[in-house]
Amino acid sequence: MQHFSISSIQTWERFYRANFINSLTGFKSVSLIGTISQSGQTNLAIFSSVVHLGSDPALIGFINRPIKAAPHTLANIQSTGTYTINHVHPSFLELAHQTSAKYPEEVSEFDELGLTPEFFEATAAPFVKESKVKYALTLEQIIPIKVNNTFLVIGKLQSVALEENILLSDGFLELDKASSICSNGIDAYYSTQLIDRYEYAKPGVKPEKLTK
Amino acid sequence: MQHFSISSIQTWERFYRANFINSLTGFKSVSLIGTISQSGQTNLAIFSSVVHLGSDPALIGFINRPIKAAPHTLANIQSTGTYTINHVHPSFLELAHQTSAKYPEEVSEFDELGLTPEFFEATAAPFVKESKVKYALTLEQIIPIKVNNTFLVIGKLQSVALEENILLSDGFLELDKASSICSNGIDAYYSTQLIDRYEYAKPGVKPEKLTK
Repeated sequence: MQHFSISSIQTWERFYRANFINSLTGFKSVSLIGTISQSGQTNLAIFSSVVHLGSDPALIGFINRPIKAAPHTLANIQSTGTYTINHVHPSFLELAHQTSAKYPEEVSEFDELGLTPEFFEATAAPFVKESKVKYALTLEQIIPIKVNNTFLVIGKLQSVALEENILLSDGFLELDKASSICSNGIDAYYSTQLIDRYEYAKPGVKPEKLTK
Repeated sequence: MQHFSISSIQTWERFYRANFINSLTGFKSVSLIGTISQSGQTNLAIFSSVVHLGSDPALIGFINRPIKAAPHTLANIQSTGTYTINHVHPSFLELAHQTSAKYPEEVSEFDELGLTPEFFEATAAPFVKESKVKYALTLEQIIPIKVNNTFLVIGKLQSVALEENILLSDGFLELDKASSICSNGIDAYYSTQLIDRYEYAKPGVKPEKLTK
């Protein structure tokens, strides 16, 4: 094994350290968050920090970087109270990655990159038409994380749109068949292959595989 | 597309809804968190809510469920201030899943399941010897998420242990080659395959692939 202490990690070059720390935490979901400003300007940005908070009520969080580094998504969510989260697939991966470029506020990443905004009733924020798994949220709470000026943004699930044939009979979504991708570090994207599903674990009982 | 509103989702059977909401957020890292009590009792539990918070300082978060549902990991972290996060690989996936069973406080999942606690100097909490990518943290802050009684647990990175040949020359960790796995929903586990890495995105510049 190789061992590294924080005292040596702190001395590393900035991008080397960012690659290292960002990949240490493992594979992450990768989503495009769609928002709209009060004046109707749409925005789309890639996030790999979406986290499940609870199923009842259905609450989903994401981490927003410090305001200076990532201002537009958070400002739109604060002003309209709504946003969409859209899965990314290989067919538009390069465009999704490109949303991380620092476009000025008056540029819509939808228009600039050629992704299609899609509006469903009851939600002001734009979905990504090309995405097969997507959902709309209303803002529940923004919790400032003071130690590094980031934010935990908590949303309440409002609606879901799914391509046909992703939802199984037990409520599970076959995301590998939907070709949703995951990420690692700041720039690497992956497809996935199911190993197994296991039944609910109980002490002293070997869990059966649910996969046929 | 299939469309679902929260008013219908709320009426669904509890496990169906849990499968649905948990898989909606996409693929997640899957890790074993190792802790130890003041009296020396080790504990090991699976988590799929680890989230990157920042690289400088290196801060990593995870969501802990309400105390009643998941008491031991959080209590140990509060009392000792240290914990380890260990990647999961197919060779011990079934054991990792089994740590989610509700064992009594006096049972160590290490002993019960046959995983090997490993202690490195300067960190009281046990690592999982079988894990190829693992790191130790000290507790920075616990933020209560009042809306559903969960907690954002924030740790400061202290040390990292990696199997040889995972770390690339730019700081990136090849987690697919390390056979780290990811999860979806509450019971599904996946291997991954690299699609591409892309260079840092800039407005108006098509990002080059970093992958050879």
